[in-house]
Amino acid sequence: MKRTKVVDALCCTDFGKDITVKGWVRSHRSSKAVDFIAVNDGSTIKNVQVVINPEKFDADMLRGITTGACIRATGKLVESQGKGQTSEIQAEDIEVYGLCPSDYPMQKKGQSFEYMRQYGHMRLRTNTFGAVFRIRHNMAIAIHKYFHDHGFYYFHTPIITASDAEGAGEMFQVTTLDLDRVAKSGQVDYDRDFFGKKTSLTVSGQLEGELGATALGAIYTFGPTFRAENSNTPRHLAEFWMIEPEVAFIDQEELMDLEEDFIKYCVRWALDNCKDDLEFLNKMIDKSLIQTLESVVKESFVRLTYTEGLNILQEAVNKGHKFEFPVTEWGMDLSSEHERYLVEEHFKRPVIMTDYPAEIKAFYMKRNADGKTMQGTDVLFPRIGEIIGGSVREENLDKLVREIEDRGMDKNCYNWYLDTRKYGSCPHGGFGLGFERLILFVTGMQNIRDVIPFARTPRNAEF
Amino acid sequence: MKRTKVVDALCCTDFGKDITVKGWVRSHRSSKAVDFIAVNDGSTIKNVQVVINPEKFDADMLRGITTGACIRATGKLVESQGKGQTSEIQAEDIEVYGLCPSDYPMQKKGQSFEYMRQYGHMRLRTNTFGAVFRIRHNMAIAIHKYFHDHGFYYFHTPIITASDAEGAGEMFQVTTLDLDRVAKSGQVDYDRDFFGKKTSLTVSGQLEGELGATALGAIYTFGPTFRAENSNTPRHLAEFWMIEPEVAFIDQEELMDLEEDFIKYCVRWALDNCKDDLEFLNKMIDKSLIQTLESVVKESFVRLTYTEGLNILQEAVNKGHKFEFPVTEWGMDLSSEHERYLVEEHFKRPVIMTDYPAEIKAFYMKRNADGKTMQGTDVLFPRIGEIIGGSVREENLDKLVREIEDRGMDKNCYNWYLDTRKYGSCPHGGFGLGFERLILFVTGMQNIRDVIPFARTPRNAEF
Repeated sequence: MKRTKVVDALCCTDFGKDITVKGWVRSHRSSKAVDFIAVNDGSTIKNVQVVINPEKFDADMLRGITTGACIRATGKLVESQGKGQTSEIQAEDIEVYGLCPSDYPMQKKGQSFEYMRQYGHMRLRTNTFGAVFRIRHNMAIAIHKYFHDHGFYYFHTPIITASDAEGAGEMFQVTTLDLDRVAKSGQVDYDRDFFGKKTSLTVSGQLEGELGATALGAIYTFGPTFRAENSNTPRHLAEFWMIEPEVAFIDQEELMDLEEDFIKYCVRWALDNCKDDLEFLNKMIDKSLIQTLESVVKESFVRLTYTEGLNILQEAVNKGHKFEFPVTEWGMDLSSEHERYLVEEHFKRPVIMTDYPAEIKAFYMKRNADGKTMQGTDVLFPRIGEIIGGSVREENLDKLVREIEDRGMDKNCYNWYLDTRKYGSCPHGGFGLGFERLILFVTGMQNIRDVIPFARTPRNAEF
Repeated sequence: MKRTKVVDALCCTDFGKDITVKGWVRSHRSSKAVDFIAVNDGSTIKNVQVVINPEKFDADMLRGITTGACIRATGKLVESQGKGQTSEIQAEDIEVYGLCPSDYPMQKKGQSFEYMRQYGHMRLRTNTFGAVFRIRHNMAIAIHKYFHDHGFYYFHTPIITASDAEGAGEMFQVTTLDLDRVAKSGQVDYDRDFFGKKTSLTVSGQLEGELGATALGAIYTFGPTFRAENSNTPRHLAEFWMIEPEVAFIDQEELMDLEEDFIKYCVRWALDNCKDDLEFLNKMIDKSLIQTLESVVKESFVRLTYTEGLNILQEAVNKGHKFEFPVTEWGMDLSSEHERYLVEEHFKRPVIMTDYPAEIKAFYMKRNADGKTMQGTDVLFPRIGEIIGGSVREENLDKLVREIEDRGMDKNCYNWYLDTRKYGSCPHGGFGLGFERLILFVTGMQNIRDVIPFARTPRNAEF
């Protein structure tokens, strides 16, 4: 008989009909008169209850069906007698696909996330991680749907690169040189490396994304990026996924509209499509989760300049607010703590901060007429701080070259990038969203290692 | 005035209204009485014609508007007098965003693909590559939509890995060790490397994908994979994108149904959503393109075993057909030439080949009861050969361990993978699709370097 997914079995009211479910046992309660087996197949956070008359089945077989075992259950769909579910299954036939020995690491409920991180290959079978990764999937779908519906093209920028993008951070080297041989020979001969030169893993697809946008009009990347920073924090991964849209002919105001519309779309998608999982996380992880998501969708984002933001922070200090990192003078970089103060305490809604001092931002950002500030459009979120970093790009070739030279960068490395300004240059802009930051926000999880299936961090590349 | 995309301007019949388009000049023809500027903004392969009365504009400005320049044109939308387009724009105002010097590498029409590969950052602005990358986008969207609609979760498997997946090929090493220092010190100390051990770029996400499927029920990956093979052919890339669905509780028959339904969905999506681009490619690249795509959607795929396939090939040889690679005996691996003979000449439609000799396939594939063959489900396509490689996976722990040991692989490297069979094992299967192979098929392009924005091949990591 064709398998019915648990998510479909639970909303089916065709009582009396025979159905087959297949899945993993979440719990098995036995009594003399009746056994209850809760079966989950990953299609929903909810389990379907399989009700068993122990007289009809082999006792040894039943005893073997412990938490984590995998079974098929066929039987009659009936209206549930229990609370919180509409239907359950009166078992007529059970097949055990796989038993589960008692050393199953996800056996006990309520294990710490730290414990579960050691079993990254098994934690996927728990309620929390099921919910997190169904939501992660939904956010990816929302992102693709949003951009597709708005005429953006998904654009694959390279992972292995010979360029250093924006000097955004420490890079991993990619090589086919035999390191033992390098050590023995006493020299590094890049001519013998796969690409004939030194190559690394990308830290951002933006510069290549601009090549796409200035040809196809509007593109977005959605791919892995890498930072070889030795940061053991709940905020850092060595391998993470980024979304980087780039749009020709967009100005600063339109870019802010795009950012706000886009991120609200994603959050609304979660509220509309991940109700059961969000309710679970709201109950178990963060009691204010759904309320926070709803308020982000409802409120219009504050738009304020860096200078205005700095004034607010200085006023707060004057009124006695204590920050861990001091609020000094115009030109300082804001920390996550400062951003969160503006969002969580001052405005109580998301902020798009604009017109940062040019010196603290990347070389490709367009300067305002004042010569001091640039046309940035960062989105600051509750709990997260900066969730989106965006800007209009400098489209003037001479200005861009000057900026590169002033910063002591090597112009020759950027010839292909500068060609976009040399040949038919156009005004354009774009932004970057760290996918895992979005997932942290939408799930209420605290540690970034818990929102990616297999985290890569210093000394950790398991599975 | 708000910008109208060229794709929208061309199908707008609201004649007489003022509109603004922005884009790059594809051609500029001048005469005394009138100038025609064809403008493209990447939203469609078609250009919108801007009609100019030269008396109304500065002659120097007009002369500057050469192929590749970027402009804004505002004017009245009128019914086109020319053939092949419905509307055009009578320019009232023109702004030049960026001129285009005469050394613009994409100036001339009809350049070879080889020439254009050297200008990977500029070729995106040509008709052919615009068409290819709009189709590539559409195939990605079709893939996400198909799996989302069928209850699969998008699952990010790791890019940096300490495991060798299936021994599928040569791997790139990823390191933060300073190679110059390694050379000087005369030794490689992996304890000082970022992950504290030797790590590489993934060759496949399948094994981690199985972890997802045996928890969430059905997942798919869609991410970059890497092979450090020194193959300079039109078929090989060092960095390419793979789609790898994995499904719990699927049998061989259902897996074949999934593969056929999935790939037909993608091809149908192209026919339905990429009409203009396909018509262009059908005209310029492959006159049988659309017909081939249509036939794949219409015909049901032949399902035959390796043994039956081999018999057909041997019969062909007996009848005088000459293959470059000899057809020898049962157990030989088929080459692309053999696969294409079956598909293109014998059956004249796609083939799903099953039950290969277990020895020529990977360790994780489920053996049939005969002990000799395995439950494979490869899809063979015209022009491409194998486009999908799939199989039911071995779910029995003991059999899988024996297979690993028989092949001389190190069981300890697979402990996490084997845990899926130890704890609640379930029947499951899946397949892999090389994204660029699909794009080759759907676009009619001949060289895989021309269907990915920035190709990585031996000695080539530009941009």
